[in-house]
Parts: sequence; structure tokens; C-alpha cells
Amino acid sequence: MAKKTTKSKSNGEKLSGSDRKTLKAIQGAADEVAKTAGGKRKPHLDIPSRTLSNVRFNKSRKIIEMGKGTNRRELFNLGQAKSYMQTLLVMKGCKGLIERGKTDTIRALYYGLKHKIKPTTENTFEDQGECDPIIEDTEVILDALREELHLRADKKGDMVGNLVLVDNGDEIDCTRMGSGGYGIPSIVEPDTIQFKECSAKFVLHVEKGTVWQRFNEDKFWKKHNCILTHGGGQPPRGVRRLLNRFANELKLPVYCLLDNDPWGYYIYSVIKQGSINLAYESQRMAIPKARYIGLRSKDYTRCQLTESVEIQLTDNDRKRAKQIAAYPWFRSKKPWQTEIDLMLKNGFKLEVEALVSKDISYVTEEYVPSRLADRDFLD
Amino acid sequence: MAKKTTKSKSNGEKLSGSDRKTLKAIQGAADEVAKTAGGKRKPHLDIPSRTLSNVRFNKSRKIIEMGKGTNRRELFNLGQAKSYMQTLLVMKGCKGLIERGKTDTIRALYYGLKHKIKPTTENTFEDQGECDPIIEDTEVILDALREELHLRADKKGDMVGNLVLVDNGDEIDCTRMGSGGYGIPSIVEPDTIQFKECSAKFVLHVEKGTVWQRFNEDKFWKKHNCILTHGGGQPPRGVRRLLNRFANELKLPVYCLLDNDPWGYYIYSVIKQGSINLAYESQRMAIPKARYIGLRSKDYTRCQLTESVEIQLTDNDRKRAKQIAAYPWFRSKKPWQTEIDLMLKNGFKLEVEALVSKDISYVTEEYVPSRLADRDFLD
Repeated sequence: MAKKTTKSKSNGEKLSGSDRKTLKAIQGAADEVAKTAGGKRKPHLDIPSRTLSNVRFNKSRKIIEMGKGTNRRELFNLGQAKSYMQTLLVMKGCKGLIERGKTDTIRALYYGLKHKIKPTTENTFEDQGECDPIIEDTEVILDALREELHLRADKKGDMVGNLVLVDNGDEIDCTRMGSGGYGIPSIVEPDTIQFKECSAKFVLHVEKGTVWQRFNEDKFWKKHNCILTHGGGQPPRGVRRLLNRFANELKLPVYCLLDNDPWGYYIYSVIKQGSINLAYESQRMAIPKARYIGLRSKDYTRCQLTESVEIQLTDNDRKRAKQIAAYPWFRSKKPWQTEIDLMLKNGFKLEVEALVSKDISYVTEEYVPSRLADRDFLD
Repeated sequence: MAKKTTKSKSNGEKLSGSDRKTLKAIQGAADEVAKTAGGKRKPHLDIPSRTLSNVRFNKSRKIIEMGKGTNRRELFNLGQAKSYMQTLLVMKGCKGLIERGKTDTIRALYYGLKHKIKPTTENTFEDQGECDPIIEDTEVILDALREELHLRADKKGDMVGNLVLVDNGDEIDCTRMGSGGYGIPSIVEPDTIQFKECSAKFVLHVEKGTVWQRFNEDKFWKKHNCILTHGGGQPPRGVRRLLNRFANELKLPVYCLLDNDPWGYYIYSVIKQGSINLAYESQRMAIPKARYIGLRSKDYTRCQLTESVEIQLTDNDRKRAKQIAAYPWFRSKKPWQTEIDLMLKNGFKLEVEALVSKDISYVTEEYVPSRLADRDFLD
């Protein structure tokens, strides 16, 4: 494998340190295959196991982590030969992206890699469902975030606030982004996004774009000197990673304004501890210090809301709430148990928008400011 | 009704011309009620009918329009009293928003208006499904777009390109928005968004954020001097209205890069002719001059794609395709009939991402440039 490709992109630009590291990992995996074959041994890959039984909650680091279990994938095994080949193919695809200095989606990668293996009639991949887990395998084998493999997700979420950043050389002043805001990219690694100036003292992350618009219109971020983000519901990877960088690099507290329902709890859980499915990424995605400033079951009485804002819990809501209450990181926390119990006892959930019944700007002028002043969060 | 409220917002700022006009329409409707009641006649509202039978395709203007049919809604009619009251309540809610210089979602408006009518146990609205059609009624009664009633939708979609605009006083240079882009707001009326400088020669609107990222990464808008937008699938109202303003005020051609499937055809139909459900807004939302530069059924052979990119049509796809082919504005167009026929004959659909199988940047470097050079559009 020509060493030169690690030094420059095919378009002549220099590779970043992160790209060099990822390429080196891919080349290392490929070299291992060549070495094994050259030594007339059976080529194989050892893949850290992504099953639930290999996932655990690290109590001291407060994130979901993978254990040390691995599975071996062999070329000369009829049941594993195809997925072995697919793994090397995905690595090849990502290598091509990095060398060309381009990024693409997991869907486009699948399209780019799918073809008939001539002279057989076998496809490399039957459908995207076959390709996606191989991408996840590749991430864990190479210990590289998907973004470092130059793979991006659909983008969702916007940002405004007291922050100036540089995005691919363009300076973005988030204090001057009007009503629209800066659309948070899907890849926000330090190669792409650098923080230039930040006077904000915390981050307020709200669940939905509609609520974000309320806070932006009321210039909350200006009055309270913060950064204001949303993730269009369950935040995509780009938003989570950006929040993680705010917490780690800028040392900003991250407060999450979410709905009082199992979905809102779950979003908080993923932001804070990481996702169970993708435990290997927690280290760079999870924000153990995030705090929940979302609606509380007790707000119905505390804020004197009326029954017009109640949304009855469904059977599925109850089931999800109990599952979430049993997560190791919630199970040990009394306030969360009380919170979820009360929601179940109430029999209804509450959206952030419910506060409009008090006043259109109650949430920006009363609710969040007083919760902040009292440091009234759930951990 | 105090005249003063038409002159200034409750926060002391001047009302815009558009806000004064909308408030005047609301006050006119309210004055009519008072006059009728004062004259001891039965208060009523005449509401332009939004049924399918009152919608027609205007062949010369090339947009979907409402006919002249109206329905009368009376206070002293047991079956209509509640919806009559709800209509006035929605007007009152919008009046409050305009006077306070705030905007909110239809969901928040519903929360703000819902309450028990004391001393009865009746709710003003049972659920949002009861409130939404009343909002649409209010739009047609007042001849005001939802945005002019200060109601906004969730925001989706981003923009970059050779355009500088002003959003609530902030200058947004869309040539310097990095990989993230400017998040297109939900309300883009001239009160909020002014175009300051535009050297772009056309607008390329792509369906999905993932495809938009490909075009932005390849700096397509810079090479081809255009504005690049996406609407995250079916574009929300803000994106459609902004495209409409580009077409009407900046006289820019709007080209739509969509998938070769019934959903892509439908998105094009809504962008171009307006939506059947909301025909009354077509005048300010539809873009009759928009052109389809999306994937074509013949691209499978023209671009020498392989079967690996085929996505088989479902029964529902076939049904939708036939419905769309029968729309009056497609029915009379031979090229569209050929297009849809061929897709049905192919038996599969094609996503824009399928072009990745040629090369990652085939779509930005070959496909769209050659379609533009040949002026190879569907009308």
C-alpha cells in the first residue's frame, strides 16, 4: 500500500492528523490480512462484540461502555466469508472517501459498494440493512467514530448564541444568525469546526425546533449569555458531538429542556450516558455532566397548570417509562424514580409547549430562569 | 376595539404594514359580528369552502386555486355554534400574537386557547385536530397567510449560495456559511427577511439534507453561481415561500433535484402548483415556473446504472404514481406521462443517491451540470 496516500489527499491537499490516524488504522487492518495470508494462515478479523451482554454502565465514568468481548470473523468459514469480505469492502470505501477529502452518507456508501461479484450472481450487499451493521463493526475495529471514517448522517438542528466558530474556514458569528440560525452540520470534528470565541456561560439544549424558535425570538441566549441548540427531537450525532465538545473543550454546563414524557427522558438518557446500541462511541458522544431542566411531573401543580394541557399516557408510554426507570443510571437515582413514578401516577404527560397556557413567553421569562436561579435540575 | 393597537405593538415598537393589514382584517371581522348583533340580526361568518369540489386548476396562471363557494357558519345554530366560537377565539389568539410582536406554532396557539368554558364543563377545543382546520378557516376568511397571522411551523431545511440577506436585522452572508449553512426560518415574509445582494443566476433545490451536503461539500453553488436549498423531504412552508420569493422577487429560475419516485413527483407538484388541501395559499406559495431536474426513469439506461441501485416499486407506489399522473397539471403533459409510464414499466424507482454508484461526485460534476447545459428539464 503506497505510503504516499497517508501524506496527501488525491486533490493535493494535506491530510489532517485525524485522517492520517484513521488511514493508518485501515492500512494496519489490511496489512494484517496480507501478513496472515502470506504466512499461509487463515485471515480473520477480531471484532469487539456489540451485543447487549457486552455493554455495561461504567459507574465512575458515568457512561455506557463496551466490555472486552470480541467475535472472530474468518474468511475460510462459509457462514462468515461474506461478512468478512463486506468488512474489508467498507474499509476500502472509507479509505477512498478520506483520500479524496470527501464525506458521504452511509446510504451513499452502500450504493457505492453494492455490485455483483462476477462471474457469480451474488451481490456484495443485498440491502442497506446488511451494510449498516458492518459500518458499525468497522468503527469498533478501527476505534474510529463514524465521522472520522468520513461518514455523515442527515443533518438536523440549529444553533444561535454567544459563540463564534470557524466552519471549513468560514467564520460563523452565532450572535448574528437572525431567526434562522446556523444549521448544525453532521460532522463537527475539530478538523471541520473550531471554536474561536465564546463568552457563553452554559448551553441550553431544547428538544424541538418550535421551542427553539420561541427562545430565539425572545433573545433568551442574549439575556442569559448562553448557546441555544435544538436537535429536532432525538438529536442527531452531529448535535450530540457538538454538545460533547462544548462540555469538554469549553467546559460549559449543558442543560436539556425536554418534554415530561418517556421520549424526553430517553433523549436525556442518550445525551448523558450514550446509546446502548452504539456504546463504543459514548466516550466521545456522551455528556455525563448534562443536566435535565425539562418539564417535571410536579409542574402540573407547581405551575398551576389546568387539565387542558394533559396528554393521557398510552400503554406504550407506561411500558417505556418503566423500562427507562430500570436503566442502571436511573435506577440508582431517587429523584428520577420519584419523577417517573409521579408521571405514572398523574396518568398524563406534559409537553414544554403546555406552558403556553400560562403565557406565550412564560417558559423563557419565568420557567427556565427560575429553574436556573434555583439550580433546580435533575441529574 | 382600541384603534391604538393597530399603530404599535404592546412592547412599543411600530407595527409593520403587513401586521397593520392583518389586524385590520381581524378587527373588520369582529366589527361585523358586533354590528350584526347590535342590529339584532344573527351573527355569522361566510367561509370560503375548502372542499375538493371548490378547488380547481387555473390553466392560465398554472396554480391550484379555490373557487367562489362559501359556507355560512352561524352562532345561533346548534351544530355550528361551537365552531363559530372557535373561529373568533383563533382570531383573538392571532391578534394577541401580532400585538405583542411574537410568533408561535399552531400547537402552542391551541394550548393557549384551550380551556373550560365556565360554568359548563365544555372545552373550547377537545384536541389540536379540532383547532387546526379552524386556523385554516381563519386564513381564508382574513385572506392572510398563516405566517401573517404570526403562526409558524417547525423549521427544516438549510441554504448556502451567492446571496446576502438580512434576517431580523442580522446580515447573513450565504457564501460564508461553512458546512452547516443557514437554517431556513419558518417565517420568511419580507418583514422578517430582506434580500440584500444576489449574484446567483438560479436556485437548485434538492430534496434531502444528505444530498445538499454533497453539493455544498463540492462547492457546487460557487462553481455554478447559484443558491442551494433543501427542505428535508417535503419542504416546509418556510422553504416553499422562500423559493417563491426567489422566483418572484429575484426572478431566479428554480430547479428541483428530486428522486425518481412518486414521492419526488409529489414534492415537485406541491412546489410548482401548490397543495390541494391548502389551495388558498397557492398564490403566494406555488412556483409555476419551477422545473424538474430530478432523476428520470430513463436515467437507468442513459447513465448506465446497474440493477444494484434499483428499488422495487410497491403496490402503494404504483397507486400513487397513477394518481399523480391523473392530476390535471400532469395529465396534459406528454413528457410527464412518458416519465411516469416508464417508471411503472421499469418496475423500480431511483434515488438521487443511486448516482453514487458511478462516482461519489458524479451528481455534482456530471449529472446536474450536463442537465443544466442541455436545459433538459421536465416542466
